[in-house]
Amino acid sequence: MFVRQWFSISVVNSTTAERHFRRFLISPPHRPKSDSPAQSSGLDPGKQSQPDAICKVQHFIISPMFSFQAPRCALRTSQVSRQLCRTQAQLRVRTFATEAAANNLVNIVEVGPRDGLQNEKGVIPVDVKVELINRLARAGAQNVEVGSFVSPKWVPQMGGTPEVICKMERLPGVHYAVLVPNQRGLDNLFALLSQSNASPPLSDEISIFTAATDAFTRANLNTTTAESLTRLEPVARAALDRGLRVRGYVSVVIACPYSGQVDYKRVRDVAKALADMGCYEVSLGDTVGQGTPEKVAEMIEEVKKSVPVENLAGHFHDTYGTAIANVFAALAQGIRTIDSSVGGLGGCPYSPGATGNVATEDVLYALKDSQYKVAGSQLGGGTIDLDKMVDIGWWISEQLGRESVSRAGRAIRSRRILEAQLAKSGETKAKL
Amino acid sequence: MFVRQWFSISVVNSTTAERHFRRFLISPPHRPKSDSPAQSSGLDPGKQSQPDAICKVQHFIISPMFSFQAPRCALRTSQVSRQLCRTQAQLRVRTFATEAAANNLVNIVEVGPRDGLQNEKGVIPVDVKVELINRLARAGAQNVEVGSFVSPKWVPQMGGTPEVICKMERLPGVHYAVLVPNQRGLDNLFALLSQSNASPPLSDEISIFTAATDAFTRANLNTTTAESLTRLEPVARAALDRGLRVRGYVSVVIACPYSGQVDYKRVRDVAKALADMGCYEVSLGDTVGQGTPEKVAEMIEEVKKSVPVENLAGHFHDTYGTAIANVFAALAQGIRTIDSSVGGLGGCPYSPGATGNVATEDVLYALKDSQYKVAGSQLGGGTIDLDKMVDIGWWISEQLGRESVSRAGRAIRSRRILEAQLAKSGETKAKL
Repeated sequence: MFVRQWFSISVVNSTTAERHFRRFLISPPHRPKSDSPAQSSGLDPGKQSQPDAICKVQHFIISPMFSFQAPRCALRTSQVSRQLCRTQAQLRVRTFATEAAANNLVNIVEVGPRDGLQNEKGVIPVDVKVELINRLARAGAQNVEVGSFVSPKWVPQMGGTPEVICKMERLPGVHYAVLVPNQRGLDNLFALLSQSNASPPLSDEISIFTAATDAFTRANLNTTTAESLTRLEPVARAALDRGLRVRGYVSVVIACPYSGQVDYKRVRDVAKALADMGCYEVSLGDTVGQGTPEKVAEMIEEVKKSVPVENLAGHFHDTYGTAIANVFAALAQGIRTIDSSVGGLGGCPYSPGATGNVATEDVLYALKDSQYKVAGSQLGGGTIDLDKMVDIGWWISEQLGRESVSRAGRAIRSRRILEAQLAKSGETKAKL
Repeated sequence: MFVRQWFSISVVNSTTAERHFRRFLISPPHRPKSDSPAQSSGLDPGKQSQPDAICKVQHFIISPMFSFQAPRCALRTSQVSRQLCRTQAQLRVRTFATEAAANNLVNIVEVGPRDGLQNEKGVIPVDVKVELINRLARAGAQNVEVGSFVSPKWVPQMGGTPEVICKMERLPGVHYAVLVPNQRGLDNLFALLSQSNASPPLSDEISIFTAATDAFTRANLNTTTAESLTRLEPVARAALDRGLRVRGYVSVVIACPYSGQVDYKRVRDVAKALADMGCYEVSLGDTVGQGTPEKVAEMIEEVKKSVPVENLAGHFHDTYGTAIANVFAALAQGIRTIDSSVGGLGGCPYSPGATGNVATEDVLYALKDSQYKVAGSQLGGGTIDLDKMVDIGWWISEQLGRESVSRAGRAIRSRRILEAQLAKSGETKAKL
């Protein structure tokens, strides 16, 4: 356990890797003198800057399945502490990711309150957003992206995120992530966290994002992809220093609305850069939903060359009706984390009127009775409760003045209505 | 070629099967004395009843990949002639099916004008139906189910089918199928065919249907599945005698709205019964759309034990959002014919308001740039023209007073509108 607090172990799931790791446990190359395990957990940022202690440890990369990132030679303890903090966050998640892969356990990252609502025309009041997040967590969702620290001038739908994260319930075992586009966003989040004495903290995770093409990055961030990565690095570092988990998004991994077909090698390089800056997971986003299963498989094959599949997530939009097929293509490639949006919240700004994020209900339905199980909290009975999600999808869609676009959501609700009618009239109840 | 006109060869694609077949060509067990190849083609029904000639030939089943169905011992020539007629129809198609499987060539059966419109609330005038069929064929569709010979009392949406098939264009190489539920329907079709001297004939194919559960068959046909098969056998025989192709449907192959989960062994037996009565293809229908890829794969695995996969088709409904994923599951199982409906025409009577048949546009989009190619006529450039299908999907949906439910259809149309706006305002054109 002592070493587990000290070094980042991406994946330990092959005999060779385990042997190397055990050898390392017995004789670690070096141990910083001044940091106690408690101090090095990184959860107490006030104690991170122990001056002048020098750490000489090795950097191991044993296999693509076993990436061992210990601090490089001659790092100061402040750097070591930062690394250890990152390590702590990675260990918490990666151990789970490994179990998930072994057990065919699929993690859902519910992005409805952020990625979903951000792309809707209507602006939802803070209290409704809070209720949405609370309902999702109570339905068993373990990962909820709750908002974004962007300027409400640019994205009015995300206005009120600070109030939202102050008001929402924080259930144990649930990760409430906020999108932080830049240093200013992170500063605002930190200011909020510092004002609050909440326990557990208001948020334990940030998401950062860039895109696989310069054209898309320029349109969204007015810079190149390389420059955006340079800007994100200190943001990720500061968040890790503060004990937060950091998740990375790569947009337009299949096609870009401005430059067409995307070079998957570029997706791979961008994903690797995000992983290297400490993202415990990199979500690969088919932002415009042009992906087909074969393209998705090809793209993931390429990215896996540089980032272990356990650290990748699939983020699909159903613009062209292929999202569920793409989810299966990603799962077949070994990915075990899928981003989805309750009620299919979120349109497609590149095809107005078209469908947006894949609906959580559709993913849950498609995985029902399959070889995969969906991970969820005990509140959802150890999974995510499909029936509750159908209700949430309808409720939030009504708040937006429309019907849910989740196909499973529509079907299950219609069936309920039909069954109620049949029961009332005394007819045979349909068994569906 | 002589023998090719005489015997039914389901599939010839293994060395062993070919060897057996060549041996048979050299020394066929028997050849009826009185039938010339021209007479035995079965295309001239008036010459089928040559009395009293006895035919003694063997029944070969060499392997599941090579089913050789010659007439059983001691059949009268009228029976032989009937078998030969069936053989003729089967050969025409099965040769193609074999090529399709080898080439990853996927056949689309466009069911919008029948299965689609039948489940819509609105009733479409004859002239609009005719235009729909004409547009579909001109877009490259090679198989179009154009209507149903059911009583308009029961299915008002199918009223006017005789007028439709008299008025529609009949493009060369396109199969225009009509659903015939029973002997009366077939008699009506025959009466129409006899009145007409059209060349090519008004229709060259009928579809017959039953279901995998007694509960569903009882609800739809007021009989058991076994009894429905008994009633269909003479219908199929008469159609084959007349030189028509016969296609079979099995409904509720995954779940039944009345009896729940379906026993796949039963699906297999019903599919086999339809194949045995001369259906060149049996379409496996997930009528209520509850299928998930794993269930679909499991079901097809079972059916393949008794019916060669080249003679199977997949018919999926997108009620729960899994249809495209199910199409890929079916293709992975070796199926190369997919039923689909332009614009996603057709709702789901068991979940009113839910989505119906998988949209042709969605299937075409998902298979674009994949390992599979879609077979189509030269009018669609050797495939089925996706852009034309999008137009047709929107046009027919507007006739029904609503928008197309095809996701690819909506996305492509939205993109066109956006691109036109961008072009008008002189902005950078999105490349999607």
